[in-house]
Amino acid sequence: MKIFVTNDDGIYSHGIRVLAEALKEIGDVLVIAPDRERTAAGHALTLHKPLRLEEIEKGYFAGNGTPTDCVNLGINGIMKSLPDIVVSGINKGGNLGEDVTYSGTVSAAVEGTILGVPSIAISLVADVDFRFEAAAHFAVGLVKMIMKKSLPKDTLLNVNVPNVSKDEIKGVKITRLGKRIYDRNSIIENIDPRGKKYYWIGGSRMSWEKMEDSDFAAIEENMISVTPLCLDLTNYAVIDDLKKWNIKFSN
Amino acid sequence: MKIFVTNDDGIYSHGIRVLAEALKEIGDVLVIAPDRERTAAGHALTLHKPLRLEEIEKGYFAGNGTPTDCVNLGINGIMKSLPDIVVSGINKGGNLGEDVTYSGTVSAAVEGTILGVPSIAISLVADVDFRFEAAAHFAVGLVKMIMKKSLPKDTLLNVNVPNVSKDEIKGVKITRLGKRIYDRNSIIENIDPRGKKYYWIGGSRMSWEKMEDSDFAAIEENMISVTPLCLDLTNYAVIDDLKKWNIKFSN
Repeated sequence: MKIFVTNDDGIYSHGIRVLAEALKEIGDVLVIAPDRERTAAGHALTLHKPLRLEEIEKGYFAGNGTPTDCVNLGINGIMKSLPDIVVSGINKGGNLGEDVTYSGTVSAAVEGTILGVPSIAISLVADVDFRFEAAAHFAVGLVKMIMKKSLPKDTLLNVNVPNVSKDEIKGVKITRLGKRIYDRNSIIENIDPRGKKYYWIGGSRMSWEKMEDSDFAAIEENMISVTPLCLDLTNYAVIDDLKKWNIKFSN
Repeated sequence: MKIFVTNDDGIYSHGIRVLAEALKEIGDVLVIAPDRERTAAGHALTLHKPLRLEEIEKGYFAGNGTPTDCVNLGINGIMKSLPDIVVSGINKGGNLGEDVTYSGTVSAAVEGTILGVPSIAISLVADVDFRFEAAAHFAVGLVKMIMKKSLPKDTLLNVNVPNVSKDEIKGVKITRLGKRIYDRNSIIENIDPRGKKYYWIGGSRMSWEKMEDSDFAAIEENMISVTPLCLDLTNYAVIDDLKKWNIKFSN
């Protein structure tokens, strides 16, 4: 089995190392990841400049682009045939609710899915003192299961793992994306040493709507959250309503 | 009515100018857009450095971040109350099918939606000789209609306009996202003047699956495509199947 591993924390992150080494137990692992942190890179693809790869150690390549670039370049440019699976992570920090739209970790799995490869994203819900063992262990089991069952079409799995020891994990829950409650006062405004105003986007996106079966709720219960995400963003449920608007173009 | 306008081609793009000036007919327009081209920026949010805004002309602000930053900063940091609508565009180039996941233009509208503001993205399907008039004209009418009808919850509209004159537009179609056929040979590999290898992600993503009611199909018929996009990426249809996998965590 050929396993492609990437992340958005960068090739030197401990999370990708633990993941890649664990996956070597079940397949040939190729790691291509950004040469620096690319957190919140979204699904950005670099079209305006050349990309480079450097093998920093056997099987570990650092790329100068985004996580999406690494997957695109790795699969379309480097590998001679499609890998069996793309595994992105282990991210330092959760990717829950709307976070997935900003997340470089999840976007790498989106890119894998677009290219026709089963893909999963794995994130550890923590800010400090990261304990990657349970997440890496779960990734190995999940990859084996996906190889047996195969993923539904155009669907990736977004996995979030609570930051506890293996013993403390309470189980696995299939969830839906939760929803954050946004704080409008999250922008820090300040004056720089040259007297010019600047802004900084704050991080106070900590609360979420109470919602049964959400990814947030699973993590609160010390369960591993597995959310199936869809590549097709069309909101089919509202198409008929929109048709009734009878939108016209009149010149 | 307060209208927030942004894009990913940058504040100096002709497309945003034509859009903003057309929308002044129906409301107060504030333009905050990247200070340079940010094509394929995805839904990237800048967390690791300060952001700055410069008013380059009355009502036109250039920001040093991504389109998502511009919306977040504009709405959370600059405006005293929520705008009535976010309009992102007019993009030079279509945002069809899976393109929406890479698109800075669409991501700006995603960010508006996350922040609770009705949002639309408008793109002109062309590579050269951009004719923005029909798109700008349509945007004005669509914004008026959205104010009257209101958008469904957590839903944005992705609009693509064919690059023809007003007279040649055949009508408006409510569509779903199409699907590209990917070319695995889209990576250009070359040697730089210093003898080092580099890669460049190519642009040969030109064909798509024949699919009735797709955004691609509408454009081919010289119709304006309006696709409702959903903020919640959960693939609800496969949740029951995944539960039957009976995924366990065994330590």
